[in-house]
Amino acid sequence: MKKEYLMAPGPTPVPPEVLLEMSKPIFHHRTPRFRQVFGEFNEFLKIIFKTQNPVLTFASSGSGAMEASIINTLSPGDKAIVIIGGKFGERFSLICKAYGISTIDVELEWGTPVDPQHIAGLLKDNPDVKAVFSTLCETSSGIVTDIKALGEVVGRTDAILVTDAISGLGADDIRTDEWAVDITVGGSQKGLMLPPGLAFMTVSEKAKKMMRNSKCPKFYFNALKALKSVEGSDTPWTPAITLITGGKKALDIIVSEGIDNVIARHARLANATRVGVQALGLELFALAAPSNALTAVKVPENIDGLQFVKKIRDEIGITIAGGQAQVKGKIFRVAHLGYSVTYDVLIALSGIETVLKELGYDFKAGSSLQAAQQAFLQ
Amino acid sequence: MKKEYLMAPGPTPVPPEVLLEMSKPIFHHRTPRFRQVFGEFNEFLKIIFKTQNPVLTFASSGSGAMEASIINTLSPGDKAIVIIGGKFGERFSLICKAYGISTIDVELEWGTPVDPQHIAGLLKDNPDVKAVFSTLCETSSGIVTDIKALGEVVGRTDAILVTDAISGLGADDIRTDEWAVDITVGGSQKGLMLPPGLAFMTVSEKAKKMMRNSKCPKFYFNALKALKSVEGSDTPWTPAITLITGGKKALDIIVSEGIDNVIARHARLANATRVGVQALGLELFALAAPSNALTAVKVPENIDGLQFVKKIRDEIGITIAGGQAQVKGKIFRVAHLGYSVTYDVLIALSGIETVLKELGYDFKAGSSLQAAQQAFLQ
Repeated sequence: MKKEYLMAPGPTPVPPEVLLEMSKPIFHHRTPRFRQVFGEFNEFLKIIFKTQNPVLTFASSGSGAMEASIINTLSPGDKAIVIIGGKFGERFSLICKAYGISTIDVELEWGTPVDPQHIAGLLKDNPDVKAVFSTLCETSSGIVTDIKALGEVVGRTDAILVTDAISGLGADDIRTDEWAVDITVGGSQKGLMLPPGLAFMTVSEKAKKMMRNSKCPKFYFNALKALKSVEGSDTPWTPAITLITGGKKALDIIVSEGIDNVIARHARLANATRVGVQALGLELFALAAPSNALTAVKVPENIDGLQFVKKIRDEIGITIAGGQAQVKGKIFRVAHLGYSVTYDVLIALSGIETVLKELGYDFKAGSSLQAAQQAFLQ
Repeated sequence: MKKEYLMAPGPTPVPPEVLLEMSKPIFHHRTPRFRQVFGEFNEFLKIIFKTQNPVLTFASSGSGAMEASIINTLSPGDKAIVIIGGKFGERFSLICKAYGISTIDVELEWGTPVDPQHIAGLLKDNPDVKAVFSTLCETSSGIVTDIKALGEVVGRTDAILVTDAISGLGADDIRTDEWAVDITVGGSQKGLMLPPGLAFMTVSEKAKKMMRNSKCPKFYFNALKALKSVEGSDTPWTPAITLITGGKKALDIIVSEGIDNVIARHARLANATRVGVQALGLELFALAAPSNALTAVKVPENIDGLQFVKKIRDEIGITIAGGQAQVKGKIFRVAHLGYSVTYDVLIALSGIETVLKELGYDFKAGSSLQAAQQAFLQ
């Protein structure tokens, strides 16, 4: 018998009670019944995004809301700063280019954080910059960005700050309003413990003002239309009903635990994971500012990183992620994200030890588990 | 005790075995396991759309694929013919305008069909038209368009024929390849018996050629990117995994019954519904070419159409749809779509009789049921 464990940074496991909620008979969305569910769902979202402003929900993957954050605020010919520390920062830049928006790409070595003062300097030298695009947790490297510091820098200018919090939301703190983030983008399949298919964005007053002048063409992802609908707990197009009914249940679980307790839990899991893999002599990839959502670990020399990830999935039953693009085969990424507790970290570490042993890597068996348990009991 | 019946033209009821499939533990999408499911899903889609060409799946509502059909083939300044017989034809025109595409709007009286020869004349007078947008079943009126005849007309020109088959697919016949439809658009929450959240589009060789020259900006709905991914049973962005695993189950049910048998079943249900309401002295709205997906019925004089729809939902437990826009309060729409059989028609008619009686409309009790049963037993 083999149990399956999903420990990749999205999709993440969905709690059984959420799966059961989604398996109830479907009902129509243009009804008081749906509006009630969606209204409550939207209030939960505000608590989790830490905003008083409306949060828009699109039926799409997270990339859809990333696109929405650009095409609703900017116009062709506008200039934007994009912080690129991995695949998802890069995506903002690609979307901008697709719409004729010129970008100042701030390319970081993967796994290292951005210096907010560098962004301040760029903003000073380029007063025509309309937006700064950042990533809370860069899923491809496991680094977390200091969004608070960026908010202080960008908030002093006329530019808006957009943060992709798709994989970080619910694991790393993001205080949308307090930190002056104008648009925080989220997705359903990460910390929110839902299947993929919903994407979110918050909209500050500053962002809303820019939206009125935006000249990028759009229809499905028209945010002003969605803002108008959400006032009446409605959506412009047919919503992904089951993901929202299940979503209400999932967000209820998060809000009942308390969003700050949820973040603290993720911090504990992340810390124990880091301590555990380091006890094996492994090196962390994003050491300078590791995210609470996932831990990226350098694959030891003489070990084939692709084989490692494949073996732990196919032989042990634990799905983790390998590296993408420039770090393909060089790192592996273990998520402790969403529906994840102490014991899941122990399972991950045990699986990692098992495959490392099989591949001939030398370490003292059980040392990662002991270290993690010590961290938990401290 | 009250049972709830969903008989609106989307979302439609989801079979319990599909709900259960979606409630299984989620798994990662960049795996052989997902690619196998998605590959089979895509083959089922080809059978249902009656095409040998690839069918693209987006995580979005149907409107997303409508937008994709436009922004991937046309460029700003292009000219298109849009057949508008209701809200969904109109949507094509609105999307075109949002992208700077000029439209020749062929506005029909709601509930009446388009004359294909009129389109032939327009194409002759406007040889620069790049695309003709049509609707298989216009959900807002219940009329079905003769797509075969349109295909003969448009197929002789350089223009592409795009058909919104969102509500018609699986109820009204659409032979994408045989009828020379270049792009057929579909959605999950109608005849395919799934929750909303997936949208589909077929791509002919002629459409694919146009895609290479299209200058509309796009990213999330980039069809050439999706075409490349779908070759490897993959998607450019995170797919709506549970809707696809459930979708494989739902499409399997359809393909096992046989797509032509499914369409014949819908024809029987639609016929019995029409015979039933006519036995009550009610008039059909889209008499000239009624769809198999839904039946639109004129609300009798002296009866408040909005109250009728509200009463049958809140008191009887049957969700049907009222009229939208110009026919608001003037028609009601009963769907017999997707997971729908003989007995569902009897339930709908019984509910309609009950509320009509309560509102003082005069008819012989049971006459609609008798007429429907006679139609079924013929």
